[in-house]
Amino acid sequence: MRPPWSYAALVTAALMVAAPVHAQSPTADPDEARIEDVITASHILTNEGVLDSFGHVSARSAKNPDHFYMPRAMPPALVSRADIVEVGLDCKPVDPTAPRLNGERYIHCEIYKARADVQSVIHTHDLAVVPFGIAGVPLRPVVAQAGFLPPETPLFEIRDANAADAKRGMLVLDAHLGDALAKTLGQNPVVLMRGHGNAVVGRSVREATVRTIYTHINAQAQSAAMALGRSITALDEAELATNAAENFDADRPWQNYKQRLPAGR
Amino acid sequence: MRPPWSYAALVTAALMVAAPVHAQSPTADPDEARIEDVITASHILTNEGVLDSFGHVSARSAKNPDHFYMPRAMPPALVSRADIVEVGLDCKPVDPTAPRLNGERYIHCEIYKARADVQSVIHTHDLAVVPFGIAGVPLRPVVAQAGFLPPETPLFEIRDANAADAKRGMLVLDAHLGDALAKTLGQNPVVLMRGHGNAVVGRSVREATVRTIYTHINAQAQSAAMALGRSITALDEAELATNAAENFDADRPWQNYKQRLPAGR
Amino acid sequence: MRPPWSYAALVTAALMVAAPVHAQSPTADPDEARIEDVITASHILTNEGVLDSFGHVSARSAKNPDHFYMPRAMPPALVSRADIVEVGLDCKPVDPTAPRLNGERYIHCEIYKARADVQSVIHTHDLAVVPFGIAGVPLRPVVAQAGFLPPETPLFEIRDANAADAKRGMLVLDAHLGDALAKTLGQNPVVLMRGHGNAVVGRSVREATVRTIYTHINAQAQSAAMALGRSITALDEAELATNAAENFDADRPWQNYKQRLPAGR
Amino acid sequence: MRPPWSYAALVTAALMVAAPVHAQSPTADPDEARIEDVITASHILTNEGVLDSFGHVSARSAKNPDHFYMPRAMPPALVSRADIVEVGLDCKPVDPTAPRLNGERYIHCEIYKARADVQSVIHTHDLAVVPFGIAGVPLRPVVAQAGFLPPETPLFEIRDANAADAKRGMLVLDAHLGDALAKTLGQNPVVLMRGHGNAVVGRSVREATVRTIYTHINAQAQSAAMALGRSITALDEAELATNAAENFDADRPWQNYKQRLPAGR
Repeated sequence: MRPPWSYAALVTAALMVAAPVHAQSPTADPDEARIEDVITASHILTNEGVLDSFGHVSARSAKNPDHFYMPRAMPPALVSRADIVEVGLDCKPVDPTAPRLNGERYIHCEIYKARADVQSVIHTHDLAVVPFGIAGVPLRPVVAQAGFLPPETPLFEIRDANAADAKRGMLVLDAHLGDALAKTLGQNPVVLMRGHGNAVVGRSVREATVRTIYTHINAQAQSAAMALGRSITALDEAELATNAAENFDADRPWQNYKQRLPAGR
Repeated sequence: MRPPWSYAALVTAALMVAAPVHAQSPTADPDEARIEDVITASHILTNEGVLDSFGHVSARSAKNPDHFYMPRAMPPALVSRADIVEVGLDCKPVDPTAPRLNGERYIHCEIYKARADVQSVIHTHDLAVVPFGIAGVPLRPVVAQAGFLPPETPLFEIRDANAADAKRGMLVLDAHLGDALAKTLGQNPVVLMRGHGNAVVGRSVREATVRTIYTHINAQAQSAAMALGRSITALDEAELATNAAENFDADRPWQNYKQRLPAGR
Repeated sequence: MRPPWSYAALVTAALMVAAPVHAQSPTADPDEARIEDVITASHILTNEGVLDSFGHVSARSAKNPDHFYMPRAMPPALVSRADIVEVGLDCKPVDPTAPRLNGERYIHCEIYKARADVQSVIHTHDLAVVPFGIAGVPLRPVVAQAGFLPPETPLFEIRDANAADAKRGMLVLDAHLGDALAKTLGQNPVVLMRGHGNAVVGRSVREATVRTIYTHINAQAQSAAMALGRSITALDEAELATNAAENFDADRPWQNYKQRLPAGR
Repeated sequence: MRPPWSYAALVTAALMVAAPVHAQSPTADPDEARIEDVITASHILTNEGVLDSFGHVSARSAKNPDHFYMPRAMPPALVSRADIVEVGLDCKPVDPTAPRLNGERYIHCEIYKARADVQSVIHTHDLAVVPFGIAGVPLRPVVAQAGFLPPETPLFEIRDANAADAKRGMLVLDAHLGDALAKTLGQNPVVLMRGHGNAVVGRSVREATVRTIYTHINAQAQSAAMALGRSITALDEAELATNAAENFDADRPWQNYKQRLPAGR
């Protein structure tokens, strides 16, 4: 299979890392580091083929846990610092003159409300995971690097949360639906959304990003395995427990994905 | 999955959009804007992997609804302004000295005749949708962004329209076949063509382009879901109605696809 | 699906074709034009993802129908004029000091012997067609552009041709095996080789090249259709006859594929 | 299918090989040539889409068969000479101040201990082979170029080797597990690892690399064939014996893969 990135860009990036870089000041604003990771993750997840014209990455504020940062409504591939908006847990921008936000920002607000441990939320339309919800087939942890997944990743069926009226749709456009999604997520790292995508959380932007990519890879592996034979072997409880007990080191793949980005990013 | 575009090109394009651009004159010819979108859509749909050496995008004239614009017979990837031909609803070029047109221009003429609401027609050989017609499996709306699709996209079987003689083929090469295709399309946004591709319509070139790409993505998602399990969940009537009631905003993905084009386009 | 080529390269190529080119002299050696097409086809078929480190394109000599031209043993992507060897129908190089030839050149010799109409032979390991021979599933003409294929493309099972001894292998390394392959090809345009690839013939290098690519696309479409449903609709006799009666114009896709090549080729 | 490399880079590389190169001195350190191949193979296998952020290539020392060379813990795409560590068969670096090694280096140590013929070991997470272990479907030699594979490639189930306690995981993190893996490998060229990847060995880095890629291609072909039909034809004993009796020439594909690397590598 073809790697989802430009080798040439990687080489360029490798040459760049050899250049001297001024160390980040210890007094730097901790939120700025998180915002920088939101931007980088938006680019990485596009470059790895997980994000399309839509989808969004956010980070909770380190200074004010009732605030978080996410890009305005725009393609994630093009996000830069000027596009980042500070948002309250009421899903309103802190600055009322802020640019228009994504309609589905309630995914983020409600998960941050429900999960104090979560520092980052990512919403994707990942085409590798979408078929699982459409087919009603449980996503299982089948590859070693996806040991963070539970034995069965929960699936959010928005019909169960929508009122039974003619206006019910597919998108998480209000606090009620965001709350229902957060409830389905529970204490898990990932929740699938039928016919739509998923939401992934982490203790950092980097962890949420690497989890998003390994959920993608795991879904590809399970789909290919089920095409070969219906009976598949997933990681068992002991294997999952061993994986969960280790500190998941997101840094090595994060650095790899970052280096795959074209020069100039 | 890998995104069907060059991230580097996107970055280049992003830098370009920062450059000052002269605003389009309010007195500009409205048909020129449509023609420019026909050219851009030809490039976008090639870049997104939907168009091959064949396939064509057209736009109805804003000034004369009985005329439309389409490229001469050539690969869509290379179309530029000089290749655009003005065609009447009789499928003849307005200028009799115009270069040779695509043999399947009757797809366009007959749909424009039958559907006054249609401002743009796109014909593709999209390999993601072709298998549905070959297998006789209905295309269903399974992803949230393809809510413009009906519960079952109609399939055009050219054998039903061709006379039962030895010369009947696969291509829509005359007005009779174009009319039969338009009748199968009916009031839908998309019609599949067995063993061939599809035709997609829109109220603008941009809408038709974005519909073409989300038909492609929806077909990929349904194929992958059916490989996982035969019982799939499509958007139901309420979900489709909610989607249809909203104004479908084609601009965000259009801008995204456009920015993915390499610099110089 | 992603297009198997670089859009940037295509744009570059498009700009190049705008440059004035000296017309080929009417007194030019006709074999040189064929050799140039062999080189271009080697690059095109690599760029389109059909050829790998192996595989080869040849052309019969226009001046001496008992000779043909093929590259020495090397990756087709890198072939240039200096690598082209003139070979007799005895499968020996005309110049005994010529560089080493491909071991499977007997595919070419024996087909040229058996088929006076054939002007070009292409051998590939195309991963889209290989599964059909392994699974024993007939390749059918399912897309409109592959109407040159017969209702069932013949499959060469080398075990039927190999003597029943311990040294029988998978490769066509002598005249006996080449002759058996040519007999299985018969009057068809394509023969599949189980666990190996195919051989494609044409009345010109360009026709053989375009047939090779549309055999590849047709195989992809049939595989995807059979994953959706086991009952597929192929082109019927009338549709195939209509297609065969038309002169197959290889030039439009050939130009498109050629323009996709990176600048400098 | 799209080739997993940049044609432009290949052309650039082709132009580069035309430049005069100083012949390697006959007195050069033989281990340096092996180390250079480890680095090149790391880049090739990334460029061909077989290696991800993890995975590693090693070579036994020609001077001291109880030592081998492998990169420190880092993404293989970025490995350069300074990252290569000399390791003993006890899996400890010869230089105690060496940078941190990959946790799964025991795959290498134990295979080198068990197999005196092996000069190179490669560990991958190849997504084309992973589904076979998950589904419990045997990998068969189905394409001519994968005739080095046995009739059934052995599968390592780490649960059989792990003690039945709560800490058993998926990774080969100690000598006991490495030894169990080496025993499952036996005298074969490849061993699959359930839910994880594979380990491939060779008499040289180049042979191990080419075997890794053809194992990848063979897995793709078998998966696609089994999607078409459950009954597949693999190479039989005579075909495998013929292939095994020939000296497997890894040089042609190695040169092709190397030339695909972007300029500067």
